[in-house]
Parts: sequence; C-alpha cells; structure tokens
Amino acid sequence: MISNNPTRCAACRFLRRRCPQDCVLAPYFPSSNPERFACVHKIFGAGNITKMLEQLPVHLREAAADSMFYEASLRVEDPVYGCVRIISQLQHHILEAQSEILKTNGQVASYIAQQQLHQQQQNVVHGASYQQDMQISEYSGVGWDVQTLANDSYFHP
Amino acid sequence: MISNNPTRCAACRFLRRRCPQDCVLAPYFPSSNPERFACVHKIFGAGNITKMLEQLPVHLREAAADSMFYEASLRVEDPVYGCVRIISQLQHHILEAQSEILKTNGQVASYIAQQQLHQQQQNVVHGASYQQDMQISEYSGVGWDVQTLANDSYFHP
Repeated sequence: MISNNPTRCAACRFLRRRCPQDCVLAPYFPSSNPERFACVHKIFGAGNITKMLEQLPVHLREAAADSMFYEASLRVEDPVYGCVRIISQLQHHILEAQSEILKTNGQVASYIAQQQLHQQQQNVVHGASYQQDMQISEYSGVGWDVQTLANDSYFHP
Repeated sequence: MISNNPTRCAACRFLRRRCPQDCVLAPYFPSSNPERFACVHKIFGAGNITKMLEQLPVHLREAAADSMFYEASLRVEDPVYGCVRIISQLQHHILEAQSEILKTNGQVASYIAQQQLHQQQQNVVHGASYQQDMQISEYSGVGWDVQTLANDSYFHP
C-alpha cells in the first residue's frame, strides 16, 4: 500500500485528492506555493503536466516544471500571444541592434575616409609623402551577423 | 437544433465527435491540417484550448490559435524548455550585440584620439595652428541600451 504525504502538495490539494509518496507533481509544486500550480493547471491542465513530466528523466523535471510555469505565467498575462510576444520583441531588438552596428561601421568607414582625404590634402600643402593607403584596409569593422540569429526561430503568423 | 458542419474540423475529427456549425475550434483547426490540432491538443488539451479561445473576442482568436500552435510546436520539439529556450538564446544574442556595440564605440573613440594626436604632432612639425579640439566632441557615438531590453523579460530559473 502506498502511503500518503503528510502534507498534500499544491497540485493534490487543488485537485482535492490524496497525495501519494510517489506523487509526480509534489517535488515541483509544493504546498507553500499554491499559485504556481494554479497557473500551470489553468494553461496546461493537471493531466498534461503529469504526462509531460512523467515522460522526462527525473533530473530534467525541475527545469521542465519551471519553464512550464514561466510559459503559463506569460500566457495568463497575455492570453492572445503568451510567450510569443516576448520572442517577437526580442527578435525586433536584435534587428535594431544589427541596424545600429551597421550604422556605426558606416560612420567609422566614413570617418577614416575623411581623415585620409585630410591627410592627403595636408601632404599636398606641406609636400610630405606619407603612405595613407593602409588606414582603411586596417579597419576590419564588426562583421557580426544578427540577421541569421533573428531568423533562426522567427514566428511567422 | 444546431446543424453540423458537413466536414468535421480537425479538432472534432480527432475527438471523434460531431462538429456543430458554431464549433469554436473549427475556424482555426481546419480538417486540411490535422497535425496542427494534434500538436496543440498534446500540450494544452482540447478543453483548455476551447476555454482560452472562448474567453477572447472573435477578432483575436486566430492570433491566439496561431501562437498556441507555435508554443506547442516548440514544446513538442523541446519537452524540457519549450519556447523558453528560444527566449534565453535571443536574450543572450542581445547581450552579445551590446558587447559588440560597446567594443565598436571604443574602437572609434580610440581611433579619433589617435588621429587627434597625429594631427597635433603634425602641427608641431609644420608650425600650423589647427583647432583639433572639436573632433572628439563632434562624435556622439551609439548610445543604444541593450541591457534594459534583455532584462525586461529575463527567465530566471
């Protein structure tokens, strides 16, 4: 006979059932945090949560329960888009970052070109014979490709 | 008496029930795409999907169904982290972008300082009296704050 937990976990208390010692949900939904279970149950349902956790090795279940709670929280907060809104916003910010990086690289290249022209003008005035050709080729700029990162998981409604 | 849809939607077909004309799920889970419903049902459950859609105004239900399908797909693909993995990756990329932008700004400031020093040295050699003080102050740099964007929704496991 399987004995029960002396204190029912948040899940079993919510579902008004006894909480066995081997309750799958008890380690991740303690009685001290009833809102956590209420939130995930509202979005996923107790049956689905149990099924999803049972299908995972024990050492991965805590991470799974945490991520399900995070997702459920975002869906409760935004019933239309859930966590997809955050993903879209972050993808947008990455594209903005790409734009900033490209703009800064452009400013730098322009500045170098201006300086090179200025130097050449000075050389003409003062009759010096500097080698300025290396300045632009020495600047490698930032070749960081954000577009690929943003596209990897783009939500296409 | 409510008449039935001549062709059951994917949800009602999956659940082996008749599909009424006012079926909540039919507009978003057509019979032509049975995998779409199977996926969301596996993660959220038909009852939760119906409940969540019914609680939304009709003009928002398509977006909600699409985002639920996207989330469910990610959770099926990654049963431990679901869409939270994507969120963490994007937040990491944003922090990398911040680092690149700061590095580029530093390179630019350094280059300007070098140019200014070079100009001053030339002025000493050639006895000119250029005003070079404006060069650094003219460069405003990129003040884009990525840290705030990454922190707005950080997943803290």
